[in-house]
Amino acid sequence: MKTTDDIGFAKVDTDRLQRRGMPEVVFSPGKTTPQILGIMQSLIKAGQNVYATRATLKQYNELKNDLPELVFHETANAITMDITPLPEPSGLVTVVCAGTSDLPVAEEAALTAERLGAKVERVYDAGVAGLHRIIPHIELLRKSRAVIVVAGMEGALPSVVGGLIDRPIIAVPTSIGYGVSHNGMTALMAMLSSCVPGISVVNIDNGFGAGVSAAMINRTVNS
Amino acid sequence: MKTTDDIGFAKVDTDRLQRRGMPEVVFSPGKTTPQILGIMQSLIKAGQNVYATRATLKQYNELKNDLPELVFHETANAITMDITPLPEPSGLVTVVCAGTSDLPVAEEAALTAERLGAKVERVYDAGVAGLHRIIPHIELLRKSRAVIVVAGMEGALPSVVGGLIDRPIIAVPTSIGYGVSHNGMTALMAMLSSCVPGISVVNIDNGFGAGVSAAMINRTVNS
Amino acid sequence: MKTTDDIGFAKVDTDRLQRRGMPEVVFSPGKTTPQILGIMQSLIKAGQNVYATRATLKQYNELKNDLPELVFHETANAITMDITPLPEPSGLVTVVCAGTSDLPVAEEAALTAERLGAKVERVYDAGVAGLHRIIPHIELLRKSRAVIVVAGMEGALPSVVGGLIDRPIIAVPTSIGYGVSHNGMTALMAMLSSCVPGISVVNIDNGFGAGVSAAMINRTVNS
Amino acid sequence: MKTTDDIGFAKVDTDRLQRRGMPEVVFSPGKTTPQILGIMQSLIKAGQNVYATRATLKQYNELKNDLPELVFHETANAITMDITPLPEPSGLVTVVCAGTSDLPVAEEAALTAERLGAKVERVYDAGVAGLHRIIPHIELLRKSRAVIVVAGMEGALPSVVGGLIDRPIIAVPTSIGYGVSHNGMTALMAMLSSCVPGISVVNIDNGFGAGVSAAMINRTVNS
Amino acid sequence: MKTTDDIGFAKVDTDRLQRRGMPEVVFSPGKTTPQILGIMQSLIKAGQNVYATRATLKQYNELKNDLPELVFHETANAITMDITPLPEPSGLVTVVCAGTSDLPVAEEAALTAERLGAKVERVYDAGVAGLHRIIPHIELLRKSRAVIVVAGMEGALPSVVGGLIDRPIIAVPTSIGYGVSHNGMTALMAMLSSCVPGISVVNIDNGFGAGVSAAMINRTVNS
Amino acid sequence: MKTTDDIGFAKVDTDRLQRRGMPEVVFSPGKTTPQILGIMQSLIKAGQNVYATRATLKQYNELKNDLPELVFHETANAITMDITPLPEPSGLVTVVCAGTSDLPVAEEAALTAERLGAKVERVYDAGVAGLHRIIPHIELLRKSRAVIVVAGMEGALPSVVGGLIDRPIIAVPTSIGYGVSHNGMTALMAMLSSCVPGISVVNIDNGFGAGVSAAMINRTVNS
Amino acid sequence: MKTTDDIGFAKVDTDRLQRRGMPEVVFSPGKTTPQILGIMQSLIKAGQNVYATRATLKQYNELKNDLPELVFHETANAITMDITPLPEPSGLVTVVCAGTSDLPVAEEAALTAERLGAKVERVYDAGVAGLHRIIPHIELLRKSRAVIVVAGMEGALPSVVGGLIDRPIIAVPTSIGYGVSHNGMTALMAMLSSCVPGISVVNIDNGFGAGVSAAMINRTVNS
Amino acid sequence: MKTTDDIGFAKVDTDRLQRRGMPEVVFSPGKTTPQILGIMQSLIKAGQNVYATRATLKQYNELKNDLPELVFHETANAITMDITPLPEPSGLVTVVCAGTSDLPVAEEAALTAERLGAKVERVYDAGVAGLHRIIPHIELLRKSRAVIVVAGMEGALPSVVGGLIDRPIIAVPTSIGYGVSHNGMTALMAMLSSCVPGISVVNIDNGFGAGVSAAMINRTVNS
Repeated sequence: MKTTDDIGFAKVDTDRLQRRGMPEVVFSPGKTTPQILGIMQSLIKAGQNVYATRATLKQYNELKNDLPELVFHETANAITMDITPLPEPSGLVTVVCAGTSDLPVAEEAALTAERLGAKVERVYDAGVAGLHRIIPHIELLRKSRAVIVVAGMEGALPSVVGGLIDRPIIAVPTSIGYGVSHNGMTALMAMLSSCVPGISVVNIDNGFGAGVSAAMINRTVNS
Repeated sequence: MKTTDDIGFAKVDTDRLQRRGMPEVVFSPGKTTPQILGIMQSLIKAGQNVYATRATLKQYNELKNDLPELVFHETANAITMDITPLPEPSGLVTVVCAGTSDLPVAEEAALTAERLGAKVERVYDAGVAGLHRIIPHIELLRKSRAVIVVAGMEGALPSVVGGLIDRPIIAVPTSIGYGVSHNGMTALMAMLSSCVPGISVVNIDNGFGAGVSAAMINRTVNS
Repeated sequence: MKTTDDIGFAKVDTDRLQRRGMPEVVFSPGKTTPQILGIMQSLIKAGQNVYATRATLKQYNELKNDLPELVFHETANAITMDITPLPEPSGLVTVVCAGTSDLPVAEEAALTAERLGAKVERVYDAGVAGLHRIIPHIELLRKSRAVIVVAGMEGALPSVVGGLIDRPIIAVPTSIGYGVSHNGMTALMAMLSSCVPGISVVNIDNGFGAGVSAAMINRTVNS
Repeated sequence: MKTTDDIGFAKVDTDRLQRRGMPEVVFSPGKTTPQILGIMQSLIKAGQNVYATRATLKQYNELKNDLPELVFHETANAITMDITPLPEPSGLVTVVCAGTSDLPVAEEAALTAERLGAKVERVYDAGVAGLHRIIPHIELLRKSRAVIVVAGMEGALPSVVGGLIDRPIIAVPTSIGYGVSHNGMTALMAMLSSCVPGISVVNIDNGFGAGVSAAMINRTVNS
Repeated sequence: MKTTDDIGFAKVDTDRLQRRGMPEVVFSPGKTTPQILGIMQSLIKAGQNVYATRATLKQYNELKNDLPELVFHETANAITMDITPLPEPSGLVTVVCAGTSDLPVAEEAALTAERLGAKVERVYDAGVAGLHRIIPHIELLRKSRAVIVVAGMEGALPSVVGGLIDRPIIAVPTSIGYGVSHNGMTALMAMLSSCVPGISVVNIDNGFGAGVSAAMINRTVNS
Repeated sequence: MKTTDDIGFAKVDTDRLQRRGMPEVVFSPGKTTPQILGIMQSLIKAGQNVYATRATLKQYNELKNDLPELVFHETANAITMDITPLPEPSGLVTVVCAGTSDLPVAEEAALTAERLGAKVERVYDAGVAGLHRIIPHIELLRKSRAVIVVAGMEGALPSVVGGLIDRPIIAVPTSIGYGVSHNGMTALMAMLSSCVPGISVVNIDNGFGAGVSAAMINRTVNS
Repeated sequence: MKTTDDIGFAKVDTDRLQRRGMPEVVFSPGKTTPQILGIMQSLIKAGQNVYATRATLKQYNELKNDLPELVFHETANAITMDITPLPEPSGLVTVVCAGTSDLPVAEEAALTAERLGAKVERVYDAGVAGLHRIIPHIELLRKSRAVIVVAGMEGALPSVVGGLIDRPIIAVPTSIGYGVSHNGMTALMAMLSSCVPGISVVNIDNGFGAGVSAAMINRTVNS
Repeated sequence: MKTTDDIGFAKVDTDRLQRRGMPEVVFSPGKTTPQILGIMQSLIKAGQNVYATRATLKQYNELKNDLPELVFHETANAITMDITPLPEPSGLVTVVCAGTSDLPVAEEAALTAERLGAKVERVYDAGVAGLHRIIPHIELLRKSRAVIVVAGMEGALPSVVGGLIDRPIIAVPTSIGYGVSHNGMTALMAMLSSCVPGISVVNIDNGFGAGVSAAMINRTVNS
């Protein structure tokens, strides 16, 4: 059985849906628009849904000529096109976000988890400097199957949230900050050094990875 | 209601069991034996189970004089004493380990997850250089609710395991290696850079944190 | 006028009291006991108080032979001997500390501020994972002239405290932690990256420097 | 009582004035002009003064269309608009600066301290290579309640100033330099390593944070 | 005998062919088009083949005016012009590549090895997340005299390939990735930390160096 | 067919000889003497030669009690015991070494290559500061199938040797040096940055890996 | 006596000529053209020669409008205008350079030393990979009072030159290279780690500083 | 003519005296006492003076048995034995030192320069925090042919000294400090970033290298 589609410059892994529980996702940076188009067409041919992350409006506008049904998600910087219906939302993943500038990463995480079948709630702009903004959401957090916490700068928010709940936290450091923020390295190191157990961490700005992890946790309920 | 026990040098957080779903755990390094003893006695007084990580045989032998019921877990370097019965093992967490030297971290993860109610399976000595050792365990991995992958040196094992399954992976880099292994930093960076989504990472040698995350995922099934 | 006392291996800066508002303080590491003794005797000869930081019990026991009036401060790892009375305590400096292992740094800060004339309050074992432990102290913090916050690991405590008060905070990262804590670098970088303004930071484990800064702030009230 | 104004993409913390002693300040980088405008309008609606840091002339010109009363501070790269009168200048904060290229950071610090009620004096272009330029200002420095020292490259100026006075110093490393200056990291590390106690440090180029710290120190006099 | 051609700004090492077994190769970045042209003309005058790496289409178009026989290799970003016939392809070097974005580095390696006399086979898009794509090529890999493995992100591919064969592997980390990939440093460190012996590593994105090493190995057979 | 020998704490990969062309080698650091003994006995039971690297004289003396035929190689810090005869030496690998302190790494490389069938020549104490010491050996270097160059400090030797010959060079940085040598990182980075193509690099102090790579190159001649 | 000229944004240190033996030099990056013009005019007013480093052709063309006698040095990226005659060239400083791309730094060093009274010889394009290019110049190097060696990438050239002569070497790392060259850090670290004593090092690309150091050495002869 | 003495483990470079103007010097760390003894005996046999740096009292006591005329220099941690008379002291090198803990490095520099023929003056304990201690020595500094400045922590002293004189400065960072001093890296980076030209830098704690550079400068006067 043929499970990869060889399109010259790339073998599209159309079998991934079965092996990994989700279709191949296009990471847009560093790919030309024709390369992205080729991969998208392979997926469509295989009857699989299209999801491209870190896409620009410009790329979307170019791709739309050939694939007019593509949808652009502005804050999440994502392009999607659903050949088959998405899974029915179930369970609960909550995405907590520290600041306006972290929104694109948070939305990428939320969109990813939703596309993989999770019901997603968003708690945005809940920074460490304003703890009073988190308190009202404790009940929501405590009933989530997984909580994604997105933060840049000193990356303290996952520790604060983690101290309040007993649910698995996926922490996402963002590259927001300047000077010793070091493009997210300080937030990453701080999250990994957290004195609160139950927090695991993904790469800087990796909202997609956090969304996948959270969705995988969210659906263990049926396994 | 009094929820912390002030013993002079530390306030033992005896309320943590309710707030966080597990009692306070003693991180032994940098604490004197009398300090550890004091915290243990506070926990016992509160009717909570004792669990000290990164303990040495020497510390155990000293503590045993006052608390003869303490148990030492040799590979995991842990001390325990259970006042109340542990939760019945349920679900499934699998711990995969790359080499002999990584065993203490793997065992700390396994013991932690077990103490928090998870049924735990161990797949040890499954290095990247011997992929044929992982293949026989794929079915076990695919039915686990969470998989902990422990590896030092180049930290490639989580990527390899992650490419084969659709379950959430908690990757634990270890400080095993020399030269550019940089005491686990290279394994950590590699795991965070993994091309496989669904992997989240904890601090170097943090088997305890991985065990907590996996156990939290494991019990979401009942939420 | 002679303002330095040349004792062969070092010129003791006995004029510092006037120029800088405090006598020279002995940083003990890397000095031999005879060297420390020589500096202490120079200070005593000049009628100035003796204060040696990062001293060991062993050094104290050796020095006591020649200077039996020396006092050892166990948690702060300091040696003192007061020729002239210390300034009357005034104002208010509060030292907040995140964990048992951070106590030596916190005590060095507190002792230093006290010796420079500050009334000092201590709020210890107030970690990020237990915010409920800080809340009862907010009024104390809000009426302090300066607040010293000592924390290792992810170094999040200054941000949390800073979000609650409008007083200047001196943050002290400690070398407590493992793995990516990098001997305090992560806490340091996190504190410098704080999203809360009004926090300034000193070197890792530099309780002495924090105490001096806080005491200088504390006495501006009379200037 | 409603204390945050939810404007879709951000909750403006209009209550901060009471809790923290100053209104929310807009950090402009990474925000779109409409986002900045929205936050400004929320603040104005709440009767609070507007202060945006690290703004560009281009942003100012765009914002002026909607808010023609905005003022642009060219060297400080700041935008302000004062709904209520600023506090009467009191006390004394002195800003010392090492070179022409450090002026924007120094001016941001000075403007911030002024807006928070401090009388501010400026001693600019006082580099280490020209110590004779600092000497004439010693009396001014010695009567300041707090001194902000701004320097790039080797960051030696705070040590030199600190050796001459007994007032709290807030050191601000700047990203000025090349090669091993590492965008301010060397100046930062040098300032933190200073052999002179009483110096605390803020993030690279963080003139705003230094201004807030100094202003908080400056007003303790009334507490 | 004159073996360097002095063209004002550079001495072209036309003797290198004998000493090092290959003519001087032009590294294009940081050189102006006239500088590249001058070096090329020196080589042609000496009867040696022209090979410029990391060239852009723009540079090629400019150079073509003076040297219309130049050939542009699009994926490899190389310019060539062969005055004398290339050596007959012999032996076997296989280039394995992990992802679409790594193709330019892989092609530079392949082209270089070919120009130095190696028969080259390409196995592209064989990532760690899809091990099933490598398995079909094991026989090819096992009969190669040297294998070049190109990978970015976590750089795990050389370890995986190395575990399967007994041939020397030249690993090439690429700058593909984001966040903690650190422009290829993580892949580089991981490759150097590999638990599989027989892997040696070249600089990030250094396809040229890998091609030279592999070609040198490939022709030892005749020595 | 059984190809791993499970001895409780480790599965000895006795099949490696066929798959990888050499038996499993014991990396001694971090293993207890009983663990090393167990692995050695498994190898002996499988009729394979024993080779333990980075062993100490103390470990050797302990192991000798159970395996009196073990041989200790003092400079190379290795233990061997040959059940079957080693391959006949063939081809030529030359090991070049920069200083007395680098000898253990050089000898580990030489011994490893010899055990894998290479004829090995040694050119020791040939530092960059004494180029006149290398010149007499150029002919030897030029007829080697692979050259291993071992150097610490600034790591310049591989560039110098590489400029003189057209054979593949495996460069081994050592941890010899102080200050900015950074335990071998500077030598490693310098070797990877070499302006001479045809040099590939292994981990710091990894004489074993260099020996394996060189031996693999050395025997391609028969493939 | 007035020794600084206050021009609003900068105090030009016109007294430096006497104190430091050379007039103030303008470091152009980060300064606006009007700022550079202002400083130049202050120097001219004080009868001192103008020397601006790291200037662009664009800056030169703008400045020429007001100061038509300015001279642009293309390779050195410098602007000069000599009000008083330069010192008569004396002594001997030799500048050795490794590659075409390092020329701007080498020329800045040479021009600086010349302007400070040194006779300067240039040995360019003398890379480590072509040692035969250095040998012919040994006599020149041995009679120089100071030798400046400029190199990027692995920075090995100073070690090689240093091993041949007994004159003080000022090594200048350049930012030429890619990947682990880390913008000159590897060359810098390698030069500082050199096994050859008598080499001291300046900041990356700091041809100016090297020229000053060499010229200061060159003129000690008259002291 | 035989110019190296092959003693089995090392070729002693007895020709270095002519080529480099000084005999080979023994760097003691990492060498066994018999190795050091062997090198010393080779030098003595060749009629050359013995100089071993970074030696311990223990090594000296062991070596004295075979070479009773050896002299131990306690602060400089050096061993010497002079077969031929040292050169007559001439010229002037001044060594400036910032603190008691930096003395061993300063003394190594001073002793080295003296052995290579320089008259040496010492200005010790002249820290940045006590500028008044440097001022009295300005005339001495201004008439030195070279000035060596030794400093740890923030490494600011060379900038301060450099701003006062027009003589070449060799700056030596020391590993004295804690936390972000990073074992001398911060002092090193700060010295390289100095805003004062005419300062060149050697490796951390490299008093020997600084002494050689200064002595080479000191004797150019006769060239």
